[in-house]
Amino acid sequence: MVRWEPDSRGRLAQAAMALYGEQGFDRTTVAEIAERAGLTERTFFRHFTDKREVLFWGAQALQELLVKTVIGAPASATPLEAATLALEAAGDLFGQRREFSIQRQHIIDASTELQERELIKLASLAEALASALRERGVKDPTAGLTGEVAIAIFKISFDRWVSEPDPGEMNTFVRESLEQLRGITAAQ
Amino acid sequence: MVRWEPDSRGRLAQAAMALYGEQGFDRTTVAEIAERAGLTERTFFRHFTDKREVLFWGAQALQELLVKTVIGAPASATPLEAATLALEAAGDLFGQRREFSIQRQHIIDASTELQERELIKLASLAEALASALRERGVKDPTAGLTGEVAIAIFKISFDRWVSEPDPGEMNTFVRESLEQLRGITAAQ
Repeated sequence: MVRWEPDSRGRLAQAAMALYGEQGFDRTTVAEIAERAGLTERTFFRHFTDKREVLFWGAQALQELLVKTVIGAPASATPLEAATLALEAAGDLFGQRREFSIQRQHIIDASTELQERELIKLASLAEALASALRERGVKDPTAGLTGEVAIAIFKISFDRWVSEPDPGEMNTFVRESLEQLRGITAAQ
Repeated sequence: MVRWEPDSRGRLAQAAMALYGEQGFDRTTVAEIAERAGLTERTFFRHFTDKREVLFWGAQALQELLVKTVIGAPASATPLEAATLALEAAGDLFGQRREFSIQRQHIIDASTELQERELIKLASLAEALASALRERGVKDPTAGLTGEVAIAIFKISFDRWVSEPDPGEMNTFVRESLEQLRGITAAQ
């Protein structure tokens, strides 16, 4: 009988995250990741382009989810309502892996290179949201501004969700941040 | 009589900007910049840490201006009003050098490394605004959210101001974007 083992990709990702956490991203080599996973470097490179991709491979799927949700939002939804539905879909996706998200955030916070990469990713998400809104007929600068503001809400909500003990669902923070945004803009 | 010449720093900056525009940031060396300016590499390094700093040396002054303006805003100002005063102070500062801003933006748009650096800078500005708001007694998450949203407005306004022909003052776009933000959040 063959002993069950997680797939190679999953084992490599687990080994990488453990090593990044223990000794830092910069000081971890692909050779060490492969060794920890009991696999070869060659197998690593069949699954990931480089050691950074272990942390960012989900970005494409996240972007597609945001775009699909904005485009599929009810015709009656305002730009911010459509963007909010997208953030909530992302919140549901993240909700399934809070432990991974926390671990990932600590690794990223410890490396300037990774922080830069993360900011680039967030900027692409803002732009993807704006493009999806334009497909719905939303004009600029409203489309661009809504994309940026939605990502600001996402960032704040995500930070709170990974920082607070026992935070419940990420979407609670998304909805709270939206309420706060209304408060901030209405107060003037 | 001594012929008037701009200071070494100004000459180096002009030479660098010209070369970045002509042949790209990546392909320009400090040796070329110094040669174009009629100065030595040693003089370059007395004024700038590296060739990237020519494009980013104003960031510190900008950050100080934003922080000072938020802290000095009238006690009655809401968080967003205080942040808006800061953006308008920045708009006045930029207004004096639109040509430089346009040239700089083209150079940055052409280089991934510089785009990453620019995003890091914007993230620091958002955090600096949030800290200044906290000094005024604004609590989180309002402080963090206002910082992020203000920088989103700044980004959109700046992009429009450098892209549109004959745009007038940058602060017109700042005020317009604020109005749009109110429209976006109120529409729900």
